[in-house]
Amino acid sequence: MSEQVRFSLPESEIPTSWVNIAADLPEPPPAPLNPGTGEPLGPDDLAAIFPMGLIEQEVSAEPEIEIPDEVREAYKLWRPTPLIRALRLERALDTPARIFYKYEGGSPAGSHKPNTAIPQAFYNKREGVRKLSTETGAGQWGSALALACQLFELECEVFMVGVSYDQKPYRRAMIETWGGTVHRSPSDLTDAGRSQAEHSSGSLGIAISEAVEVAASNEDTNYSLGSVLNHVCLHQTVIGSEAIRQLELAGAYPDVVVGCVGGGSNFAGIAYPFLREKIRRGLQTRFIAAEPSACPTLTRGAYRYDFGDTVGLTPLLPMYTLGHDFVPPPVHSGGLRYHGDAPGLCALVHNGMIEARAIKQTSAFDAAVRFARSEGIIPAPEPSHALRVVIDEAEQAKQAGEERTILVNLCGHGHFDMAAYQAYLAGELEDLEFPESEMEAALERLPEAPALS
Amino acid sequence: MSEQVRFSLPESEIPTSWVNIAADLPEPPPAPLNPGTGEPLGPDDLAAIFPMGLIEQEVSAEPEIEIPDEVREAYKLWRPTPLIRALRLERALDTPARIFYKYEGGSPAGSHKPNTAIPQAFYNKREGVRKLSTETGAGQWGSALALACQLFELECEVFMVGVSYDQKPYRRAMIETWGGTVHRSPSDLTDAGRSQAEHSSGSLGIAISEAVEVAASNEDTNYSLGSVLNHVCLHQTVIGSEAIRQLELAGAYPDVVVGCVGGGSNFAGIAYPFLREKIRRGLQTRFIAAEPSACPTLTRGAYRYDFGDTVGLTPLLPMYTLGHDFVPPPVHSGGLRYHGDAPGLCALVHNGMIEARAIKQTSAFDAAVRFARSEGIIPAPEPSHALRVVIDEAEQAKQAGEERTILVNLCGHGHFDMAAYQAYLAGELEDLEFPESEMEAALERLPEAPALS
Repeated sequence: MSEQVRFSLPESEIPTSWVNIAADLPEPPPAPLNPGTGEPLGPDDLAAIFPMGLIEQEVSAEPEIEIPDEVREAYKLWRPTPLIRALRLERALDTPARIFYKYEGGSPAGSHKPNTAIPQAFYNKREGVRKLSTETGAGQWGSALALACQLFELECEVFMVGVSYDQKPYRRAMIETWGGTVHRSPSDLTDAGRSQAEHSSGSLGIAISEAVEVAASNEDTNYSLGSVLNHVCLHQTVIGSEAIRQLELAGAYPDVVVGCVGGGSNFAGIAYPFLREKIRRGLQTRFIAAEPSACPTLTRGAYRYDFGDTVGLTPLLPMYTLGHDFVPPPVHSGGLRYHGDAPGLCALVHNGMIEARAIKQTSAFDAAVRFARSEGIIPAPEPSHALRVVIDEAEQAKQAGEERTILVNLCGHGHFDMAAYQAYLAGELEDLEFPESEMEAALERLPEAPALS
Repeated sequence: MSEQVRFSLPESEIPTSWVNIAADLPEPPPAPLNPGTGEPLGPDDLAAIFPMGLIEQEVSAEPEIEIPDEVREAYKLWRPTPLIRALRLERALDTPARIFYKYEGGSPAGSHKPNTAIPQAFYNKREGVRKLSTETGAGQWGSALALACQLFELECEVFMVGVSYDQKPYRRAMIETWGGTVHRSPSDLTDAGRSQAEHSSGSLGIAISEAVEVAASNEDTNYSLGSVLNHVCLHQTVIGSEAIRQLELAGAYPDVVVGCVGGGSNFAGIAYPFLREKIRRGLQTRFIAAEPSACPTLTRGAYRYDFGDTVGLTPLLPMYTLGHDFVPPPVHSGGLRYHGDAPGLCALVHNGMIEARAIKQTSAFDAAVRFARSEGIIPAPEPSHALRVVIDEAEQAKQAGEERTILVNLCGHGHFDMAAYQAYLAGELEDLEFPESEMEAALERLPEAPALS
């Protein structure tokens, strides 16, 4: 009865530095390339759209990067987040495994996204930028950046994927409540948008092109990205650093660390601090990245150089890709519908440090409902992919008669996704197939670049 | 920079008992009456629809009531909740006042409602009940009870006000995700529902009638109410008890305690533990109950005996009432649209221990947006009425040059209410008038009963 379930930390234990995993890797991941010259990207290539504070973090080899006081102050609005032992789920599964979840859904935006939105707004403000432009799919990132811009007195302009703009007016209202401006993408405000007008429902790749164009063509405007880049993954490591401390309080250490992957940042956030410990202390910890089987970048993509956006305005990124103009099927996990992944994470998957698993949509919702009925919290569809892996691992532990400690990042709540739950409960949710032939065609349109080994 | 903002407690500090304010009052509030006999209600009158464990609490004069271990275990899923100093709001208001908010929106249901849903499910389960029936307006209470029933393995049947059932499918999906069943009210499943078929959009009063009828006519089914009754207010006092401890950590004590009032339970939850201290220690603490000006029970209602439901199945409750068949205008704060209030709270307002203020809808949303832009969290429309009072008090403190410490119960997040924010931001939200003449007519239909003095 009296086993401890909830491991909280006082605000004084908000981490004072971010974990830069680049310092621990045996060899650096391949460098991004300037698509014009084919040369490795330098800081100057990024200066048009990013502030120097973030560019330094993007290329840094320092093991720890100090978190500015102003950022820690803003983190206090919702951090430290709780680590919770899923004792009721363990009992429901009748498993000897111990399951812990780090819950990021208590942030004002309902997800982990403000962890990086806050420092991105801070560094831009410090360097005199007046406005940030960005893209958003379902709206998690756009709303988080609008919040951060409000706190640091910046303007915020969000290009929202057309189909989400039409279907998800509530996330739009959130962006506006925090003072941001939202445009339906493709818009007629940019060359990129006008060139894609026939793809009226939009895509994340197109919206990125629009936001980058706005930043590149306005002196006082920078661009902000919610995942994929090194500095974004870096900022999310507050999740894993807090979890290490909380698991000490619980007298536990994970055998398996699980997260979902869209662009890779929430996964990196929980995994990298534990990956550092694995490398430095020679541990056997396993890391599992859960992705949707309808958009299976890590498990089915090609490991190649590709653009981060559809139009081709970004540097060439070394990553698992389905092709920069591949449009994933409309699964409910809007946050996981991206054609590529963080290059740093891809290199770790490529060299076997991290496992990847593709999860079907209905299988993710089955796990989500089982979780909600045991633990109360209704998870967002994205981390429900990770919960599927957690349940599978706990059931394997039972079959093997093993005490296995599982840690998962529950990166957001599902209060904006109840339409998807409704469809699932009514038996109307379908498992959308990965259209492999479209990927094959998309890969033929990849830019010329060196092969990755 | 380094002022403490966030006051968390470990799970070991979840309160071990509820505060029963009845023990502290100079005289007991007037008794509810049996409408058939006109006699004060006894435990037997309630036994058909409530378990004895809750009936004892309803009439108890004990100052403290122990919280069962099973209930504290379930509270751990989200309690203790944080107390947060609204330092950014204070700065935005440039006020010498110190503002603290107790945030209940981090519960799985997104509101304070599980604080009582959990013990209600527990006591019913302990006494062999198989199913709970209840009503819900916008869905906060119905979803909280569905969660609690799931945790204690009870069935849950929810009658949802017709207009909300049609307009708010997402709360329905939440109830179903937690395994509950939802009916549109008025339904054809009950005599009460069939008798009100012409009021097709429904009302809270009608839905209560339906749920009470189902409980009264089924041996293994009990009824569960989300506010108004003494035992419901009692369970919510975990909010105030935790806040007392957290304010000690902050080195602060409130001059003013603020909450919104629909049925009265979230207000009672934060206020009663401080009211006990005021009475026992002779303090000057003020208490302000914020209600919508479109449904102004405490500020404009008649202090009379009335039914708790529309059809007249409940006992006669001594309370401020707009008339049991009064239908409030459709303000966005569904949780505040009730014709009466908790009798205990009404008695405290009647004898001047608690002030009441009526707040216009647009004025509440203005406060909500200012709060969201400073503190991040987007409040539900209901507690936004309380935030309006907080901002007004802070501005008065500034004019008076007074350090004033203000404590408010932020009882839920607004992630389900973004349509209302959208309307507000678009300038399309109207201040609905209180239809006084309808109340006058409704009061003429009140049952015969002794006058209240």
